[in-house]
Amino acid sequence: MIKVGIVGATGYAGSELVRILLGHKDVEIKWYGSRSYIDKKYASIYQNFFQLVDANCMDDNMEVLADQVDVIFTATPQGLCASLVNEEILSKVKIIDLSADFRIKDVKVYEEWYKLEHKSPQFIEEAVYGLCEINREDVKKARLVANPGCYTTCSILTCYPLVKEGIIDPNTIIVDAKSGTSGAGRGAKVDNLFCEVNENMKAYGVATHRHTPEIEEQLGYACGEKITINFTPHLVPMNRGILATAYASLKKDVTYEEVKAIYDKYYADEKFVRVLEKDVCPQTKWVEGSNYVDVNFKIDPRTNRIIMMGAIDNLVKGAAGQAVQNMNLMFGLKESEGLELVPMFP
Amino acid sequence: MIKVGIVGATGYAGSELVRILLGHKDVEIKWYGSRSYIDKKYASIYQNFFQLVDANCMDDNMEVLADQVDVIFTATPQGLCASLVNEEILSKVKIIDLSADFRIKDVKVYEEWYKLEHKSPQFIEEAVYGLCEINREDVKKARLVANPGCYTTCSILTCYPLVKEGIIDPNTIIVDAKSGTSGAGRGAKVDNLFCEVNENMKAYGVATHRHTPEIEEQLGYACGEKITINFTPHLVPMNRGILATAYASLKKDVTYEEVKAIYDKYYADEKFVRVLEKDVCPQTKWVEGSNYVDVNFKIDPRTNRIIMMGAIDNLVKGAAGQAVQNMNLMFGLKESEGLELVPMFP
Amino acid sequence: MIKVGIVGATGYAGSELVRILLGHKDVEIKWYGSRSYIDKKYASIYQNFFQLVDANCMDDNMEVLADQVDVIFTATPQGLCASLVNEEILSKVKIIDLSADFRIKDVKVYEEWYKLEHKSPQFIEEAVYGLCEINREDVKKARLVANPGCYTTCSILTCYPLVKEGIIDPNTIIVDAKSGTSGAGRGAKVDNLFCEVNENMKAYGVATHRHTPEIEEQLGYACGEKITINFTPHLVPMNRGILATAYASLKKDVTYEEVKAIYDKYYADEKFVRVLEKDVCPQTKWVEGSNYVDVNFKIDPRTNRIIMMGAIDNLVKGAAGQAVQNMNLMFGLKESEGLELVPMFP
Amino acid sequence: MIKVGIVGATGYAGSELVRILLGHKDVEIKWYGSRSYIDKKYASIYQNFFQLVDANCMDDNMEVLADQVDVIFTATPQGLCASLVNEEILSKVKIIDLSADFRIKDVKVYEEWYKLEHKSPQFIEEAVYGLCEINREDVKKARLVANPGCYTTCSILTCYPLVKEGIIDPNTIIVDAKSGTSGAGRGAKVDNLFCEVNENMKAYGVATHRHTPEIEEQLGYACGEKITINFTPHLVPMNRGILATAYASLKKDVTYEEVKAIYDKYYADEKFVRVLEKDVCPQTKWVEGSNYVDVNFKIDPRTNRIIMMGAIDNLVKGAAGQAVQNMNLMFGLKESEGLELVPMFP
Repeated sequence: MIKVGIVGATGYAGSELVRILLGHKDVEIKWYGSRSYIDKKYASIYQNFFQLVDANCMDDNMEVLADQVDVIFTATPQGLCASLVNEEILSKVKIIDLSADFRIKDVKVYEEWYKLEHKSPQFIEEAVYGLCEINREDVKKARLVANPGCYTTCSILTCYPLVKEGIIDPNTIIVDAKSGTSGAGRGAKVDNLFCEVNENMKAYGVATHRHTPEIEEQLGYACGEKITINFTPHLVPMNRGILATAYASLKKDVTYEEVKAIYDKYYADEKFVRVLEKDVCPQTKWVEGSNYVDVNFKIDPRTNRIIMMGAIDNLVKGAAGQAVQNMNLMFGLKESEGLELVPMFP
Repeated sequence: MIKVGIVGATGYAGSELVRILLGHKDVEIKWYGSRSYIDKKYASIYQNFFQLVDANCMDDNMEVLADQVDVIFTATPQGLCASLVNEEILSKVKIIDLSADFRIKDVKVYEEWYKLEHKSPQFIEEAVYGLCEINREDVKKARLVANPGCYTTCSILTCYPLVKEGIIDPNTIIVDAKSGTSGAGRGAKVDNLFCEVNENMKAYGVATHRHTPEIEEQLGYACGEKITINFTPHLVPMNRGILATAYASLKKDVTYEEVKAIYDKYYADEKFVRVLEKDVCPQTKWVEGSNYVDVNFKIDPRTNRIIMMGAIDNLVKGAAGQAVQNMNLMFGLKESEGLELVPMFP
Repeated sequence: MIKVGIVGATGYAGSELVRILLGHKDVEIKWYGSRSYIDKKYASIYQNFFQLVDANCMDDNMEVLADQVDVIFTATPQGLCASLVNEEILSKVKIIDLSADFRIKDVKVYEEWYKLEHKSPQFIEEAVYGLCEINREDVKKARLVANPGCYTTCSILTCYPLVKEGIIDPNTIIVDAKSGTSGAGRGAKVDNLFCEVNENMKAYGVATHRHTPEIEEQLGYACGEKITINFTPHLVPMNRGILATAYASLKKDVTYEEVKAIYDKYYADEKFVRVLEKDVCPQTKWVEGSNYVDVNFKIDPRTNRIIMMGAIDNLVKGAAGQAVQNMNLMFGLKESEGLELVPMFP
Repeated sequence: MIKVGIVGATGYAGSELVRILLGHKDVEIKWYGSRSYIDKKYASIYQNFFQLVDANCMDDNMEVLADQVDVIFTATPQGLCASLVNEEILSKVKIIDLSADFRIKDVKVYEEWYKLEHKSPQFIEEAVYGLCEINREDVKKARLVANPGCYTTCSILTCYPLVKEGIIDPNTIIVDAKSGTSGAGRGAKVDNLFCEVNENMKAYGVATHRHTPEIEEQLGYACGEKITINFTPHLVPMNRGILATAYASLKKDVTYEEVKAIYDKYYADEKFVRVLEKDVCPQTKWVEGSNYVDVNFKIDPRTNRIIMMGAIDNLVKGAAGQAVQNMNLMFGLKESEGLELVPMFP
């Protein structure tokens, strides 16, 4: 049994890790870390786990924790993992960080977009960007995995094959993304109250959202150049789900069949990426509760652009599910172990 | 492997059966019956199953089906199962009927509340009312199980211990129940359109809802007399979940501890019934996607009444999950096989 | 023009007062009081009022305010109005208090249910309970009106005619009420976050909710005796609306027509109370944004009980609309002035 | 009093016309046309109008109707108005058509996108596109007004000033629009059931939605050339509201202040268009129930694009409210008469 510690277990991503890991046959959760709720019954914070989890919340002392577990998931605010990690810890346990601390290779870009000083720049180079479909082999060997952001996962996987194959001009990419409200976390803020979000929709972080450089960096690797894109997130009155609608100019005339073949080239063997049938637009509900990414596209010959669409559950493939997928790879388990979650509809 | 046929696979309860059975290690679904969608890809009707189910929809010919499977689930409109079943079929396969056809022992009561002529009254006596927590031993031996209604399951399990032990006057029971909209089915009706249900709430079927006699019959068995109760269902703008708030007059002075001990007597060993801690009110979200029933109660000394509360996922414990629980019992499997679904929050 | 001051203008009830009063032809809002947002643009707190309200938020100094306005609405937490009011203020302005401070005549009952010391018990006797349909003549002469609670308004008006006429046994009344989330206010609490409320339902304050004694007191006046009832509030994933489902035992055999005639006796001439047609159950959406109360009932001869149902918009008839209705009466205006709001559907 | 007839009064746009016109002091509704509900009480179809509308539904015989009213609103499926209108009718009454029949000047474009033969091409030239903020003077003189589409209104008003002033390259415009579900109408379709829409999001009509040529035509007039754009609609789990997020490449370097000045040039005097303050993103809830369009923009110097955002209530400014605004202009009334609806929040 792999012993697992979760730092930040009482956020939504942390609690989703618990939900998934409780069904993982090779794992035992040993540590439910939560600064805010130390010594409280974990199941009193998330009553869905009543009679399923008996443990109390613990602190986030990663040095102590490193002696007790095989892997630590940090589902914590930006900056925390970088301030807690050190070589000794990394020599003892694997770390899968769900925050942004090790996602961006250029520390200046990180510090500029996150308005934070990076406390462990020495580990950035080593950290593997944990998008399994793209970096599978590196993940397998990693000590420290930077688990991708939710918007990022959806945006990158939606566009990746066409960027990689040079079908679209990457600098024309515009990603208009829509997210359920769990992406905003469990902090008590007026903006996230039911009555403020329900029956409402808005864009936010326009031209300034932190997931932008992460998408740019990863898609830049795919096409071998630095790129800039537009990314606009929106808040939607639903709990879960991200839908990305991405636009780009085609570099050449292509048919549906040609583009479909490219998506299939990259994703036909990927268990968690489903390229939908012609003219079927992804819906977030079709992946709810599961680790799937549903993608599809539509060519618009009138404007010579292509519209690419992707849907994920932001807490699963966008956070906890992907983290478990990374863990499986890092420990040599079946990649889908514990993740064969059938989407729940309705 | 147990071979399963589903008649009515394209309703919400049918599709939930598919979701659950896909994760059941001893089962193989052989037949996705759907009158409305014959020969269409099942996964084109419920795209959440894309790449998970490859089969086409088939008809509802139970005589043919009986030769091919070990158990048939009928998730069909009232009256259909009774019109299709016969001795030959029952001699070949077990049947778990999710409709109301075999739930009520008095055929006159059935015909009065359902405004239907019963086509197979000869099987009513034999049919076992499939509320496992109460009729476990009978279910194990049954050929034909009448799977309880969603409101009924929640209402009965909420009140059962106190009725059984004579703590409350059963004729004073008032069940005020609230249900998510999936309980209304997938039929295309104006009343169930998003804009009609969303931001709205109403009672319906007041004093006439068909689950009333079912609750009365089962609670009547518990106290050994015929009883009448009030039952009022309400439609709530959410997909899943039933919350039952039940009121009854206490027959004697009781303390919290005494009542708690009674609930524990019946439910402490029941895997799927969770008696919550003192003063914690059940929430439908805490059981979403799972087979749990969460119950609790509050004594009101001012009025000498007790308020009992229960929450289930109407499609799981209220339909498909309970049906699988019955199947497990009927085939000698572990009762919770395939049902260890962790509730999903948020 | 009547000059109006609002203390507590940045809560949901306060902002609803603004919405209604902006459309009231005889009124000018002179003071947007808000402790939390002093000196901030009011329209920056509620952007729906952008370009409609230019004022900044002000403090809650009622002595200063009393010199500048004709009427003060206090839409403030319990206890605040009682701590601010005094004889000098009351000699200058009329006060309509949307909190509970002056609703309950027995100060001990108030202090027990609200866990607060009452700071102005000397005004309790004078204060008029502002349920216009019942206390119209007293409201007209009042200096200080206690505006009823949202649950209370809905519950009382739903049951009042049958209690008054002695058709039902008032001590058997059970009110099972369901409320939209705006009733919980705009405070930043985890329990009211979108993801906690959405797709969820729960009871709360079971047997202990503060609106209980208020309902008991008013219905007690109607039948001329002290009564105790059960009242259970529930939180529903919608912004607005209260639905009350009330149960009581009939004291004699009655027909639909007889009961209908009683409701009509009290409400046929009431502009804001609509007794629906036979078998039509009230829906909260049908009154959304308006000052209407929709009521109806169903006799259950099987149990000899009657089920009474009522629906209001909790922010309008349950708070701000009723407050304006009271103001209209107090200032000799047409009772419906500014309140001819057509319900918005969908 | 202006006598009004509504053909298609039982759709959502028709019922919103009723809601608005009931509060319009110069108008009397004489005819509630509804093929589907002839002779039924109008208020039995929309119970929010109980005791407010006493009339029965009538047929859609526009020849009869033309003798009885001054203006006809047709809130009907595409093609119906064109098939019913004729010169005699137009000589007697003014017509405001909420369908697309007279919105597009090139009949071939109409027939191609709508897959319909146009039955009255002779009136297309005469019809005035009823976007008051742009065509005010023409509307005043019109007999036949083509009321703009909901997506179109929002998209055009969001982009218009920058297209008109040549700030952006119009052929780079991409409009990613999100709509509440009332835009899909009240037809009983599985796709619009509560459980299908709730907790879900999807794009639809990608690269083929019928509002595309309408936006292109109107923005083309603004810049004096034929243009092609991308337009993608999305379905959002809310009743009302459209949010348009539009992207375009800047033709020159501009500052925030320069762009703000351009928006102000066109909209500072427009009562129903609110240019929000810097960095405030429009939210659909801030305009709910009102005739407002809220717009704003953000310059992205990294990509040299501008992001323009607009929000409306699709049933008000996107349909019924705009139709009444047109009526007011056509009859020489104050343009905002009956439309001073304060947005409702929450």
